Amino acid sequence: MTRQELIANIRRKKSFLCVGLDTDILKIPKHLLTEEDPIFAFNKAIIDATAEYCIAYKPNLAFYEAMGVKGWMAFEKTIEYIRKNYPDQFIIADAKRGDIGNTSKLYARTFFETLDVDAVTVAPYMGEDSVTPFLSLSPTLSQGDGEARQHWVILLALTSNKGSHDFQLTEDAQGERLFEKVLRKSQEWADESQMMYVVGATQGKAFEDIRRIVPNHFLLVPGIGAQGGSLEEVCKYGMTKDCGLIVNSSRAIIYASNGEDFAQRAAEEAQKVQQQMSTLLTIDN
Amino acid sequence: MTRQELIANIRRKKSFLCVGLDTDILKIPKHLLTEEDPIFAFNKAIIDATAEYCIAYKPNLAFYEAMGVKGWMAFEKTIEYIRKNYPDQFIIADAKRGDIGNTSKLYARTFFETLDVDAVTVAPYMGEDSVTPFLSLSPTLSQGDGEARQHWVILLALTSNKGSHDFQLTEDAQGERLFEKVLRKSQEWADESQMMYVVGATQGKAFEDIRRIVPNHFLLVPGIGAQGGSLEEVCKYGMTKDCGLIVNSSRAIIYASNGEDFAQRAAEEAQKVQQQMSTLLTIDN
Repeated sequence: MTRQELIANIRRKKSFLCVGLDTDILKIPKHLLTEEDPIFAFNKAIIDATAEYCIAYKPNLAFYEAMGVKGWMAFEKTIEYIRKNYPDQFIIADAKRGDIGNTSKLYARTFFETLDVDAVTVAPYMGEDSVTPFLSLSPTLSQGDGEARQHWVILLALTSNKGSHDFQLTEDAQGERLFEKVLRKSQEWADESQMMYVVGATQGKAFEDIRRIVPNHFLLVPGIGAQGGSLEEVCKYGMTKDCGLIVNSSRAIIYASNGEDFAQRAAEEAQKVQQQMSTLLTIDN
Repeated sequence: MTRQELIANIRRKKSFLCVGLDTDILKIPKHLLTEEDPIFAFNKAIIDATAEYCIAYKPNLAFYEAMGVKGWMAFEKTIEYIRKNYPDQFIIADAKRGDIGNTSKLYARTFFETLDVDAVTVAPYMGEDSVTPFLSLSPTLSQGDGEARQHWVILLALTSNKGSHDFQLTEDAQGERLFEKVLRKSQEWADESQMMYVVGATQGKAFEDIRRIVPNHFLLVPGIGAQGGSLEEVCKYGMTKDCGLIVNSSRAIIYASNGEDFAQRAAEEAQKVQQQMSTLLTIDN
């Protein structure tokens, strides 16, 4: 999906919500456990219930890998299901990968050729050649009609967790913090048409500093809901004229209920967030 | 495997070689492609041929994920095969994972419960709570005889690739480089009985600086062979009285030949490295 298509979807649906499919076999409603593939059954119901209110889905690989082969099958089926039934959804594989160039190339093959997602989250610690293989595959891919499919790297910048303070805030001799260096340096590798950044909703006013370095890039923002970040604050300091935000909520939506009504309750929670977003969204026409 | 067991294996086999199972369907001998599971068939033959000369195996997850569900099945079978037939081998899942605490816990469940490896490589960018879940599982696991199985985090410190210069060498206001901060800070989370570090063989004299901060920890050293690092140099600057090194070679061993003789040639290459290691190894009795 291109940046322009993403922005058009946000405008049309008055939403910049991403639903995080952090599907844990230990947390899904008990009545689904008799299904042949409980993880996929859960995802399918959640997707059908929430697609109207969101513009992106973000399965986190950890939850699928924890189930081994069965988990990978559920993951693949989930991607296929979204692609086929909701082609306007932006699909993010939250994988936080990154390895030497030769190996990152393989991860890129997995996510963009074997699986056909729009974006992968990548960890920056290993630097340029660990990130660029995810970008360089693009021109070889096609959407079947010969048109190249645009895909994305979403690089970790300033994450939502407590440990983000350990290294990401380290200042160098010139006073530049590590996450700022990541933002600055990585712009040499790709522009706003292919690169986004992860910035935790819990980081509050740091969004102002971030917008000074990346005024136009989209930010993927986890951390509202269960992790306690504020949507108003994120919008106040992080929103651009093109929205520039994809805000993720996982647990607060998908585990709103663990009874028979789980999908209906997920829809209600997603709709609540979408309605709040529609009042906060200022997007140029 | 405990640190003492690992050291005993190194002493007995006069080897600190790790064979990297970076098995790529596009690179394995053509005659294996008719096998039901070509990846596992290749791994099995390589393992049987090299086990005598090495003390560890390190499958890199990227190569297995690139094959989707089939790749995961081959990965699981490979781990099981090593566990069953070569219980003295240290198994490293080279996954470079790391996420918020809640999610890292899931990755830990995957690698240490579902898959039963000894160690996982972890990326440090997200800090303490992204790393410690891999440590805290330990006491709950058992080896069947009630004894807790010791497992390990191998944290990326100074990697072998060109991009390692982008962020890992960034100096803070006190002149401490990022990889040095990772080494120092992470010692608050676990000691040398549970933590190792990745340091690329291509980093030469940086091993001296590293040994000042972590004089006793084991280092996992990729980058000899195809990537051009020198074993002599690594040993000169990095070896401790307990050896303190696990040196990995992947492509130079497993792809020594792509003909019918691939396993025999892999054995010869592994033996060559082992013989060189036996002359370089100085280990206290």
